[in-house]
Amino acid sequence: MKEVVAGVDIGGTNTVFGLVDRTGNVISQGTLKTVDYPEINNFVSSLVTAIHNLVKKKDDLELIGIGIGAPNANYHRGTIEFAPNLAWKGIVPLAELIRKKIDVPVILTNDAKAAAMGEMIFGGAKNMKNFIVLTLGTGLGSGIVINGEVVYGHTGFAGELGHTTVIQGGRDCGCGRQGCYETYASASGLVRTALYMLSEMREDSMLRDIPPSELTAKKITEAAGKNDQIAMEALDYTAENIALGIANAIAFSSPEAIFLFGGLAQAGEILFEPVRSYVDQKVFPIFKGTVKILPSGVSESNAAVLGAAALVWNEMIK
Amino acid sequence: MKEVVAGVDIGGTNTVFGLVDRTGNVISQGTLKTVDYPEINNFVSSLVTAIHNLVKKKDDLELIGIGIGAPNANYHRGTIEFAPNLAWKGIVPLAELIRKKIDVPVILTNDAKAAAMGEMIFGGAKNMKNFIVLTLGTGLGSGIVINGEVVYGHTGFAGELGHTTVIQGGRDCGCGRQGCYETYASASGLVRTALYMLSEMREDSMLRDIPPSELTAKKITEAAGKNDQIAMEALDYTAENIALGIANAIAFSSPEAIFLFGGLAQAGEILFEPVRSYVDQKVFPIFKGTVKILPSGVSESNAAVLGAAALVWNEMIK
Repeated sequence: MKEVVAGVDIGGTNTVFGLVDRTGNVISQGTLKTVDYPEINNFVSSLVTAIHNLVKKKDDLELIGIGIGAPNANYHRGTIEFAPNLAWKGIVPLAELIRKKIDVPVILTNDAKAAAMGEMIFGGAKNMKNFIVLTLGTGLGSGIVINGEVVYGHTGFAGELGHTTVIQGGRDCGCGRQGCYETYASASGLVRTALYMLSEMREDSMLRDIPPSELTAKKITEAAGKNDQIAMEALDYTAENIALGIANAIAFSSPEAIFLFGGLAQAGEILFEPVRSYVDQKVFPIFKGTVKILPSGVSESNAAVLGAAALVWNEMIK
Repeated sequence: MKEVVAGVDIGGTNTVFGLVDRTGNVISQGTLKTVDYPEINNFVSSLVTAIHNLVKKKDDLELIGIGIGAPNANYHRGTIEFAPNLAWKGIVPLAELIRKKIDVPVILTNDAKAAAMGEMIFGGAKNMKNFIVLTLGTGLGSGIVINGEVVYGHTGFAGELGHTTVIQGGRDCGCGRQGCYETYASASGLVRTALYMLSEMREDSMLRDIPPSELTAKKITEAAGKNDQIAMEALDYTAENIALGIANAIAFSSPEAIFLFGGLAQAGEILFEPVRSYVDQKVFPIFKGTVKILPSGVSESNAAVLGAAALVWNEMIK
């Protein structure tokens, strides 16, 4: 029998799941439409059945656990709590509901922490004990690993670097506060910065022909790649702010590496190069040259499933 | 035989040491003048002899280890590295030098991390796994405990919260950078803020009669206690900035408590009350009400020796 773990990534629209072996191969994969299940019990039944079917489809597979990445997941309690983008309201005891149907360990955490675990078990952080993953998407998520363990803290919700303050009285944030790191250091932060540069600078720019509602981080980095001055300025300012938050994180936990992941990190060297140089400039001198700034070592397409599966594999290895 | 640990606190001027039992009693204590020993080998000889003498003076004591708090200490390597306020230059292998003379475990860390350990073993954090100690003195030191372990990170130098940036392009810091947390949130930060308020505000103030070189955090908090408007404003702004750094630290590691320690923390409720209220206002909503802001549970007079001794007791308990 070959042991496999089911990795499940619950998103607002879709739930992706797959069977992952010890070495990080995704053996088979499936999808459910999360929005089709406003009732949590129906969701759990369909998910468990779908996983069972994947396992039965191949000979000789033994399911040894289920790892789940989900928004507002509480690792300590195995619950999803007050997730604004999911139909299930209040506190959902997801791990318990699944275990009633299938007798294997079920581990739940949020997406960024699953990404950190994926990086440690299957990605670029295989031999690291201290590192941080920043997911630069619509917001900024973070998974912090210290002494080989994901940091959950007293509440289970540690690692909200996206909501540390980088500019007091700065940009309005979706959380109701101002100047949060993610309002500058994320794909949507880059869009806001480009709009600001369009207001401040007088240069021509291809961004002037795109309605703000259609402006994306991808369009801006592409324009920057074509030497569009305003796009380049926006990218530089974004890199500077990403670096400031990284410098602060380094002062906190002195990691060996910071991995950048998610939509904005796809920009590649045009982003990484200025981020590295600003980190060098901004970091407390004692840490200079001690931290690698790296792209994720897990491929974006499989990352969510691998990260979720890594939660369980990590426990098995211990 | 009663087991005791020697706790040693090496300062630029004096080195204080004492024998500490398992329950945190300081059985006996001594002092060396650090400045009398420009040669490290002489210092080690005198320190070891002095500790031996303390142990021999009482019947039935058994020395089971030596814990040391020192500036620029590297826990991983047992060294003091490039300490600007000590005569010993370069990298000093202190733990090794001591072990050559006395065969017990020697553990070395910096002052703030020793304070965190003292809090955990003998103070207010006895049953806590996740907390942070901030020492608000001339600078701001921090000792961060996550999952019951002091955070050292990849380099051994983690926990430099005093050098996270709270105001980009803000006050000049001794580290050569600008806007560091400790330039606002420390005893000397309060003095700088009072000078700023004297420049901005027109109110009468008893602080106007004190030369800036003689202005201290104590004088300012005393004036604030007498309803001196400028002193009150300075204290309020300082509390706000202390709170901002605390809110950022909470987003990082979600501790159960933050302990404030050192000169400025002596101000008591006149400082703690506004700090608590600003933390409540500034913290990411998910963490609201989850963190206690407390004075240290270790008395200031014994804290350094107890913290250093706690380093060893912690290892013995494991």
